[in-house]
Amino acid sequence: MKIVRSISEMEALTTHLKEKDKRIGFVPTMGYLHDGHTQLIDKCNEKSDVTILSIFVNPLQFGPNEDFERYPRDEKRDIEIAKQHQVDYIFMPSKEEMYPNESSVKLYVKDRVNVLCGKSRLGHFDGVATVLAKLFHITKCDLVFFGLKDAQQVAVVKGLIDDMNFTVELIPVETVREKSGLARSSRNVYLSELEKNEASAIFGSLNYAKKLMFDGENNPVIIKRKVTEFLEAKIKADIEYIEIYNYPALKEIEVINERIIIAIAVQYKNARLIDNIILDKDGNLPHSFI
Amino acid sequence: MKIVRSISEMEALTTHLKEKDKRIGFVPTMGYLHDGHTQLIDKCNEKSDVTILSIFVNPLQFGPNEDFERYPRDEKRDIEIAKQHQVDYIFMPSKEEMYPNESSVKLYVKDRVNVLCGKSRLGHFDGVATVLAKLFHITKCDLVFFGLKDAQQVAVVKGLIDDMNFTVELIPVETVREKSGLARSSRNVYLSELEKNEASAIFGSLNYAKKLMFDGENNPVIIKRKVTEFLEAKIKADIEYIEIYNYPALKEIEVINERIIIAIAVQYKNARLIDNIILDKDGNLPHSFI
Repeated sequence: MKIVRSISEMEALTTHLKEKDKRIGFVPTMGYLHDGHTQLIDKCNEKSDVTILSIFVNPLQFGPNEDFERYPRDEKRDIEIAKQHQVDYIFMPSKEEMYPNESSVKLYVKDRVNVLCGKSRLGHFDGVATVLAKLFHITKCDLVFFGLKDAQQVAVVKGLIDDMNFTVELIPVETVREKSGLARSSRNVYLSELEKNEASAIFGSLNYAKKLMFDGENNPVIIKRKVTEFLEAKIKADIEYIEIYNYPALKEIEVINERIIIAIAVQYKNARLIDNIILDKDGNLPHSFI
Repeated sequence: MKIVRSISEMEALTTHLKEKDKRIGFVPTMGYLHDGHTQLIDKCNEKSDVTILSIFVNPLQFGPNEDFERYPRDEKRDIEIAKQHQVDYIFMPSKEEMYPNESSVKLYVKDRVNVLCGKSRLGHFDGVATVLAKLFHITKCDLVFFGLKDAQQVAVVKGLIDDMNFTVELIPVETVREKSGLARSSRNVYLSELEKNEASAIFGSLNYAKKLMFDGENNPVIIKRKVTEFLEAKIKADIEYIEIYNYPALKEIEVINERIIIAIAVQYKNARLIDNIILDKDGNLPHSFI
């Protein structure tokens, strides 16, 4: 496994790989790797000749009052995990390498951003799209892997790839969970044991919604109300939102008669947790997600 | 020469060309080809294995009160000229092919846009950057050729390529002129014979500025005043601006002690004309422009 910190070195490597007609798979991350990430890496290995993992805590996607500075980092451990999972190249540039001066251009995301997490994270997806466009160019990837835990991100990246004519195939990968059902997240380290136990009810409430749909309920207002009551009874944290939209367009709907996402965000003292489930209109999990 | 109208066909062709390690040169245009364009095509042939010419009048870069609808178009003649100049592929997509629905993302250009033509053409360079990013992806070009007549565009594209890490080399090509000195432009067809004769004074005034600098004048305010007087005495059209900035940063300067651009825009009844000259601090033409 090779650790690459400079853009020009990475570009030289990927140019060479493309000359040898290698199929390049890419897993973009902000590091502090957990099972959710290694699942993406394993899928990437399965589908690509070469796996590139990027680790870059992207300042552009954090708001001024967000946790950029205290976002968890552990480079040594990340490198060890990447090695164990047969990553070929880790690309871990510095902030100065990626943004040597204030960028003269950036991507602006218009659709799918004023809902769910985008609503409270102004400009977040502009930062995500901008860094991904840069990373797609640098890695020359044919495939890119994203976890469905951030299903809004998957939908936004799908729009980025289609509308900007990137020739990159997007592979969404299902959320990895603890035994309790809690979705894996780098931010879970901020939870107390008590909070962690309690937070497993988030996935419980998504399954409750699934059951309601499966039993024939197709009114999103009723499902949201029942799921809210269910979750409020089980956790003490603030529920930021429980929303239902069609997917991947992320538009509000009055009746469920197409694929939807039920998404939840919960604010604990030191960590904001998100989770979701994507369901076909009959309440079944889809075979492919986008 | 092959005429390609669909994005998927173009992508299949360029994927195949890259597999054969061809060096792809790209000349993006809005058609109505003139000697300025054929100069770009000839340069492209010289430096590339394959020349792709795009002809697309990009609605995104026209303001609501600009000339998108009446922008001159002559597909048949353009195809003939492209053939004569050994273009390999003309990519001429429809508006619907390039923008099948309102795009969920676009590029936003922050720097170098609030001067010169950008000042009066709000959002123009956002539209230019967005369509170019799409075209760079579709054509998979290694080289791209732009005329220096629109030197601000060259500077913006340089920023786009550098800041978004496109692996595309930008080749600026010197402005092609009529015998009189008038810069070639698709919009020259809107000039009367009288206006056309008179407009040659624009280039005359740029040469006058060059002479002033060569003779030791390094105060941009004095040069602008003298050039304005020179030009006002020779043409009846409205002078929209005569500006001096450093190049390619396009920042205002108080003393000329670095590379600069002197740029002029003139409004005739039916056509707005632009021209410029890029000079090193001693008044000489630079050997390479960016």
